Order: sequence, then C-alpha cells, then structure tokens
Amino acid sequence: MKRRDFLKAGAIAGTTAAAGTIAAPAISQGAREFKLVMSWPKNFPGLGTAAARFAARVGAMSDGKMNVKVFAGGELVHPLKCHDAVQEGTADMYHSAEYYYQGKALGYSFFASVPFGLIPAEIDAWIHHGGGQALWDKLGADFGVKHFACGNSGSQMGGWFKQPVTSLDDFKGLKMRMPGLGGRVIDALGGSSVTLAGSEIMPALEAGTIDATEWVGPWNDLAFGFYKLVKFYHYPGFHETGTVLSFGINKGVWDGLSASEQAIIESAATAENNYDLAEFNANNATALTTLLDQHGVELVEFSDDLFRGMGEAARDVLSTVGNTDPQTKEIYDSFMAFRKDVIGWSKLSDQTYMNKRELVDFYSWSFNRQNLKNPLPSGSGFIFSTVCVLHL
Amino acid sequence: MKRRDFLKAGAIAGTTAAAGTIAAPAISQGAREFKLVMSWPKNFPGLGTAAARFAARVGAMSDGKMNVKVFAGGELVHPLKCHDAVQEGTADMYHSAEYYYQGKALGYSFFASVPFGLIPAEIDAWIHHGGGQALWDKLGADFGVKHFACGNSGSQMGGWFKQPVTSLDDFKGLKMRMPGLGGRVIDALGGSSVTLAGSEIMPALEAGTIDATEWVGPWNDLAFGFYKLVKFYHYPGFHETGTVLSFGINKGVWDGLSASEQAIIESAATAENNYDLAEFNANNATALTTLLDQHGVELVEFSDDLFRGMGEAARDVLSTVGNTDPQTKEIYDSFMAFRKDVIGWSKLSDQTYMNKRELVDFYSWSFNRQNLKNPLPSGSGFIFSTVCVLHL
Repeated sequence: MKRRDFLKAGAIAGTTAAAGTIAAPAISQGAREFKLVMSWPKNFPGLGTAAARFAARVGAMSDGKMNVKVFAGGELVHPLKCHDAVQEGTADMYHSAEYYYQGKALGYSFFASVPFGLIPAEIDAWIHHGGGQALWDKLGADFGVKHFACGNSGSQMGGWFKQPVTSLDDFKGLKMRMPGLGGRVIDALGGSSVTLAGSEIMPALEAGTIDATEWVGPWNDLAFGFYKLVKFYHYPGFHETGTVLSFGINKGVWDGLSASEQAIIESAATAENNYDLAEFNANNATALTTLLDQHGVELVEFSDDLFRGMGEAARDVLSTVGNTDPQTKEIYDSFMAFRKDVIGWSKLSDQTYMNKRELVDFYSWSFNRQNLKNPLPSGSGFIFSTVCVLHL
Repeated sequence: MKRRDFLKAGAIAGTTAAAGTIAAPAISQGAREFKLVMSWPKNFPGLGTAAARFAARVGAMSDGKMNVKVFAGGELVHPLKCHDAVQEGTADMYHSAEYYYQGKALGYSFFASVPFGLIPAEIDAWIHHGGGQALWDKLGADFGVKHFACGNSGSQMGGWFKQPVTSLDDFKGLKMRMPGLGGRVIDALGGSSVTLAGSEIMPALEAGTIDATEWVGPWNDLAFGFYKLVKFYHYPGFHETGTVLSFGINKGVWDGLSASEQAIIESAATAENNYDLAEFNANNATALTTLLDQHGVELVEFSDDLFRGMGEAARDVLSTVGNTDPQTKEIYDSFMAFRKDVIGWSKLSDQTYMNKRELVDFYSWSFNRQNLKNPLPSGSGFIFSTVCVLHL
C-alpha cells in the first residue's frame, strides 16, 4: 500500500469509528470495501501472506464485488489492538491470534493455543466438529465480533535462548517474550514473560529488555533474524502446539452481509486454514537447514525432565485460568474433554505411525546432519533422554 | 435424491456423453447445473458428507447460480469409475480417491496415499506448497481432468483380521481388501489384495471371498459393521497414512468457467479439505469406544518387527512403481524428496511434542481402558515392543 492510500484509509477509519461501533464498509466503483487490520508486517511469511490470500480469495469469488483492503500491523492500529479496532468499528475485519486478547476475556487463549494443548489437526477438529466454533461465537458475541479459524502456524519451536536450558532453574529470573497462557507458565516457573508483537522482538533483544524469545518456527524466525543475537534454538515448544490464526469481523458488518457473501467469507477463511498450515510445514524444514548451516544456530531438545516440569506448571495454570469465571470455565471444560479424546485417537493414528515410520530407513532423515542420521533404537520413539545439544 | 430425479439425470448424462467428451452443464432456472459423481454411498460419514458440503458451499457462494447435483456411487456410474465418467463427460465432477485410478496412471496413487507415506498435514504441504499440485495438473491434463484436494480421511487403521497378525507369515495366502499401492505390499508379502468399493466389502467378507479388510477408521468402519464378521482391529495402518479425497472436474467444463466460478470451486474444495479431516478426527475416538465397549472388538498394535517388514516391502514396491515410466518417476521423485524434508520437520514438531505431551498426566488417557491408563515409561514414546492384544 502506498503511503498516500494509507493516510487516506486512516482518515476514513477515524471518521467511521467516530460514527459508532458498527463499521459501514465503503462502496467504491460498485465494489464494497472492507478494511482488514492484522497483527503482522505486510506479507510476512505465513501470517501476512495468509491475510493477503484471504483478501484475494474473497475478491476473486465475489468477482470483485467484495474488496478487502489489508493494513499491516501498526498501519491503522497497533498490531495487538486488532480486536479493539473491529469491536469499535475502526476496521471491519482482522487477521490475528486470539491469545493477544486474553486481557479482554481469558477464554480467547483457547482459540489460539494453550500450553500442552492440541496440534493443528486436533484443534481444527475441536473448532469445526467438537463444539469449539459455537463457544467462540458465544464469546465473540460479547464483543460484537464474529470469528473464524483462518490459518495455523503449526506446532511451534520452543524458543531462542542465550544458553541451553538444562533445568527448570534456568527459567528463574528469565525475561522471555511469550504471549498467551504460555507466558503464565514462564511466570509460574519463576521467569518474567512479556507479550510483544513480532516486529517488537528484535529491538527488545537488542536493548536487553528480554533475554529469550519464541516467535513461531524456523521459517518465520529466520525472517526476523533472531539468530543474530541468540543461538540456542529449542524444541519442541510446549506453549504453542498449533496456533490458530484468527479472522474476526465486526458483527454488525457480518449481519449485514447476504448469505452468499457470508459463505464466501467463511469458505475463504476455512480454505486459508488449510493452505496456510501447509505453507508453514513446507517451508520450515528448509529454513531450519539455513539456520543451522549458514547461521551457526544450535538445536537443543528440551529434556523429558524439563518437559515434565513445564507440563505440571502448565496444568496448574490452565486449571486456575479455566476456573476463573463461568464463561472461561465453559470453554476450558469443552477444550479439555475434547483434548482427552482426541489425544487418544492421535496416539493410535498419526503419533504411532510417525514413530514406527522411522523404523524403516527409506533414506537417512537429517537436515544434512550426520549426528541425526544414526538408525533409531527400536521402539525408542526418538526421544533423547537428556538434553542434547547438537554441535554442528 | 429421488429415484425419478436419478433416472432423469441418468438420461441427461447419456445424451451428454454421446455428444462428446466435454460435458455441457445444463442450465436450469438461471442456475448452471453440474453433475458430481462420487465413490461413496450418499451422505456416508466423512466421504459422502464431504461431497455434499462441497456442493452446498458452491451453491451458497454462487448465490445459487452454480448448482452441483451429487450422485451416490452406483447411481450414475460404478463407484470406482468416477474418473472415467468425468473424462468422458458423463459427469462434470467427481469426489473420489485417486488410487482407484492407478490402472490409468500409476502416478495417481501419490495423490491419495502410498504405503509409508505422509500424514495429512504433510501431504497438504506437498500438494499446496511442495510442487504436488503442478504435477497433479500435469497428470490430469493427459485425461482432460482438473483436480483439487477436497478432504482427507486421516491416518487410517491397519485393518480387520480374523486372527491377530503376529508375523509376516500371517500375510501369506491372505485375501485382503486394500486399494492402491498398499495392496501391492500385501501381494509382495505373499497375500492377495483386491480393490473393492466400500459398499462391496461386507458382501465379500460374508461370502468369504476376502479374509481381511481395511476401509478407513473407527467412525467409517463402525458404519459398515465389519465388527460383525471380524474382531481383530489393527493399528497403525502402514498403507494409508492420510488419504486425500479428491475432486475432479472435466477440463473442458473447468476452462469454460469464469475466474470467479473457478475461485469458488477451488476455495470450496480447499475449505472442505480442512473441514473434512477435522470431522474424521473428531469422530474416530468416540466410534472406537463404541467398537470396543459395545461390539467386543479387540485392538491390536502391529509390532515393530512387523512394521519393519512391511516397510521394507513398501520401499521396494514404491521404488519399482516409481521407476516404471518417466511420468510416474517425476511424481515419485518429487514426493520422496519432499517426504524426506517434511519428516524431519514433523519429528521436531508434532511428533516429538506428542511423545512428550504424554509425560504429563493431565488425565489418564484411555478409551475407558484401565490397561491403557498406566503411566507411560519415560521416553518410551508408547511403542509396544511386541504385538499387544488388549483383552478388554
């Protein structure tokens, strides 16, 4: 977007916001225009690109009659204020992640990702067919916002640290960027969590206001360049195990759409929910190779002991949060009951299959790493029993 | 669909087919009608429902201007002849699985599922962002068919057997229903595989023309009632590890659509690709509980030794098939190169996370089964080292 368009859009938005809480999309050249704000930089891999594709899909399907204009984080509103903007009518739509809005309602975190939560296929099952969407609609109705899942960043990496994390004590006094309920787990472990938009992380690392950070995965993390300041890259993440990217639309705008327009928006969001996760999964392996080979990053697996400690803290955090108020409890109870069943099914299917798949050496699996090429011990499930720093 | 409509549609189809290979969708009351044939019974869980939702999405998004009429397997053409029907113009579209058409081109199997292949999130990554769609388009062009992914049945169960399979010798002489390249693995192990449409399986089991079968997973298998004839339900499946359900459209029909109509079809298919897998994952756990609790089914895990043997046979089958002709080799090479990278990423993310997630007992995981409630040995990854029949 040109600077001039940005200023113009900002002026329009101001006017609209002053007029009331229901945004009135502009009509231009026979097309209806919708302002979409997002939490990401423009065309940022997997995030900004998802919003751009959503807009393109809506435009194409409506034959240009629905024109979604995408505003990067900070362009119209602060990257973490998208929900406010849509609630208040400053914007018509947003593309963001719901845990940024846990300050407005704790239940929102469950529609992004919670610590020790669900992988993408599992959370999609909860939202689409396990009662999640109805609970999300109910929650959103309190704020005049209608939500859809619209992308997924996948199971995330555990984060970037100055030194390998080898015991729970290493979290004591640690200042770490981590949003959502994962941040509360860091706090429970004696650290100090902070929520920052993606674009704010590098400056905070440079200024020393944070010691460690997580963001998404290799593809996204490479783009921001954290490897320039911190070298120890941990996995797997306990805190964001399949983060839903969310689409929100002002409820007044939504209710004013025709059934056909609503169907176009819902299908565009759901299509992007599939297409976007695929983009993350296709690009992460390549990006990780780049981080390891070209930037001297060291890969560290969280030990079982560490994971157990983080899990116990997470269970306590979730239980406390889930029982805070009736609205959150209803969401928590649904999520946790579904979690129990779907984990059982995942174990019989994807999980056990993936563990057994590697018993047969189709090729050596590696990121060009000899030390990951060793045949796996039978039945081990490839879990290192201790922290294993891979010096490359 | 009423019998009368069916007959009428059949008559129209006959006329259209006689006219040429490009179907000309009927125009009715201002709406354009498309005939969609499928390989499944009407509204069969996860399969027929996916096709019905696809049709509903297209109808809603086009404001009724695109009317997709769904024909159950056998209604217009044989369930496994959908590709022929669309190629020849008897139907405009199909919803099926590509391995049914490996007789027309071996490469088709890679766009459904191949033994020791990819889980759903991985194959989506290959199709959408790893070069898969371009290869699928190239393959389909030879037959005048344009394809999209339109659903996924998830990682499938290993099948139903009269007795637990405890050694590779148990496959010798075994007559088993298994389509695609998985069937060739059964043949390589000394068995005899056969491809049957879902609706043909129960009669074949009853007649004794097959000894064993796989179909999909608990939700679907319960619906067909295999438990009435065979009791030993094995997991995980090696043969279909995330089967793509495919949408095909006559290329002449596709090329005649406007950009907007094409966008509607592509988004409807991609949205269903997300929504449908979620439906399988949400329903399988519950259905499995029903099979175990109400129908006396016994759950059997394939041992590591068995899986290793099946994997070695699968590797040989894939290598042979993949090198049969240049067209198949191009697909095989792309698939296998992608498999290598994405398996590495899955291990760092979903796989290791799922293995470690169960170190913390949020609840006891079980299908109400005490013997699955035991705390898992640290680092075991929950792999039984021997065949373990769970007597309940």
